[in-house]
Amino acid sequence: MKSLPSLIALAIFISPNLQADPLPSWNKSASKNSIIDFVNKTTTEGSKDYVVPAKRIAVFDNDGTLWGEQPMYFQAIFIFDRIKALAPQHPEWKNKEPFASVLKGDTKTALSGGHKAILEMAMATHAGVTTEEFNQSVRDWLATARHPTTNRPYHEMIYQPMLEVLTYLRANGFKTFIVSGGGIDFIRVFAEETYGIPPEQVMGSSIKAVYEIRNGKPTLTKLPELNFIDDKAGKPVGIHQHIGRRPIAAFGNSDGDFEMLEWTTAGSGLRLGVYVHHDDAKREWQYDSPSHIGQLKRGLVEAPQRGWTIISMQKDWKTIFPDQSEKKTN
Amino acid sequence: MKSLPSLIALAIFISPNLQADPLPSWNKSASKNSIIDFVNKTTTEGSKDYVVPAKRIAVFDNDGTLWGEQPMYFQAIFIFDRIKALAPQHPEWKNKEPFASVLKGDTKTALSGGHKAILEMAMATHAGVTTEEFNQSVRDWLATARHPTTNRPYHEMIYQPMLEVLTYLRANGFKTFIVSGGGIDFIRVFAEETYGIPPEQVMGSSIKAVYEIRNGKPTLTKLPELNFIDDKAGKPVGIHQHIGRRPIAAFGNSDGDFEMLEWTTAGSGLRLGVYVHHDDAKREWQYDSPSHIGQLKRGLVEAPQRGWTIISMQKDWKTIFPDQSEKKTN
Repeated sequence: MKSLPSLIALAIFISPNLQADPLPSWNKSASKNSIIDFVNKTTTEGSKDYVVPAKRIAVFDNDGTLWGEQPMYFQAIFIFDRIKALAPQHPEWKNKEPFASVLKGDTKTALSGGHKAILEMAMATHAGVTTEEFNQSVRDWLATARHPTTNRPYHEMIYQPMLEVLTYLRANGFKTFIVSGGGIDFIRVFAEETYGIPPEQVMGSSIKAVYEIRNGKPTLTKLPELNFIDDKAGKPVGIHQHIGRRPIAAFGNSDGDFEMLEWTTAGSGLRLGVYVHHDDAKREWQYDSPSHIGQLKRGLVEAPQRGWTIISMQKDWKTIFPDQSEKKTN
Repeated sequence: MKSLPSLIALAIFISPNLQADPLPSWNKSASKNSIIDFVNKTTTEGSKDYVVPAKRIAVFDNDGTLWGEQPMYFQAIFIFDRIKALAPQHPEWKNKEPFASVLKGDTKTALSGGHKAILEMAMATHAGVTTEEFNQSVRDWLATARHPTTNRPYHEMIYQPMLEVLTYLRANGFKTFIVSGGGIDFIRVFAEETYGIPPEQVMGSSIKAVYEIRNGKPTLTKLPELNFIDDKAGKPVGIHQHIGRRPIAAFGNSDGDFEMLEWTTAGSGLRLGVYVHHDDAKREWQYDSPSHIGQLKRGLVEAPQRGWTIISMQKDWKTIFPDQSEKKTN
């Protein structure tokens, strides 16, 4: 019979399985198991799949993976609000697309160009603004704007089960990064407080900026010039540019994340590729393909043969948003 | 009289000043004091200059600040070696600048275009190479190449006093970043082992890359296209793009770092701007202005009025390279 100290030692050794559930908002499921199994194997010294802490890099898409993206990208709503606010100074927008569609309330036409169209509108509204003024405008907007159907602040439209994954990975020595098709500066305003991800671990699409002395004060000012589109095949390029090594885990929800999952899981050693599948019409939204936003077609077909995990929001998640249970009892 | 436990508690509380010298390779000097004073003030809770750990960002130039840059940028020597190796496949280089100058051994002419000329040569020699092949070529070169006058491997041409600053800052909760005009992928190959700075905390100049499937294998391949010049006014832009918040400490050695120090020290709260001055002809090199490499003219004039620290390598540093004392006794 083992002595008490050796039993304690044994318990500590196999502690990941004995500790409190690290993912309490998840139902028992294959997808939950795949995440826990990956973390156990890559962090247990002596395991053939062990990965040193410095190489425990996990990347997450944002729109549709960490927070919602319906009825349209939240950043698009921010930009539409800016266009409406600035319209009196831009009478030409009434006859110029995509601004005309925004002002008419035809968001579908305004958004038909995807992330790139949003960036073009961002350029038109943000050019000439300093980075500090821009950050303040995002903070002001987040403080007052409300989601059109849930009436929640946008930074509360985040997925509780994914927050648990972020915390769980970090508790196991992973560095967590956002790799978003959305605007890098927009996400950085709330990522640290909302997700625990500091600005230097946020990647996204961007417009250029220029450094200059304005009235004696060093200033960074946004330019109406595209810098980088961090979507599709741009995601591995952005990861290389920003992180400089290949992640071992990647989480996405659309075909825009396909190359990120492909690049991540093609590395040697144990890898984790995960898709969040929006299949919960009741508690969130139900969409995959065809869809104007967050289309998931190729990913859904190829995930099984590539060994990627597909999360069913409907079946695998007990709750969707952090305070959902409270809202329901109200 | 205080009890022994309370004295121990007191000693722990004020430990930064009582502990072993954190910068043992530094002579007692105003520049050493300015660094220690800055760290004490920004990390002591309750101090009016206290900075939360997440905002303790320190940025370092590489060439001339963390390692040497004479008789020319070490990366230029790497690229020259690549040009010589690839010359048989490029007969046209004999009559094309800057390649012709490299092949004739006229490095001064080849380098007259600065970081940009080096990047152009990098593009010509690295295009079509995968990121993994490139990393291997740098590793191979570092393992065999020797500095022309000291005969040391290049990654041993690093400054021991600056290694101590990096370690000291990190021990006090700072995140240390490299912000170099040199090539980001080149530096990343050795930065983690040499400086303790992981790839995701290295910024530099870069050429573009493309993600593609080559023979069924996901691949990132370098393109002959400039992506970003991380020098002069490009440094604050690169810092914003990569870190997303303003550093509180910046270390450089040339006018190429001026804007980085200016942007860093123009932020609110206590800031630290530091120039390494190459004034040690005997143990290292003596140069500032005029100089083809690492010119320091404006910085030297303006540092005092801006409250920036100037390190005299000759007077402030006991040793230059990590194993200098051993070499001297050999």
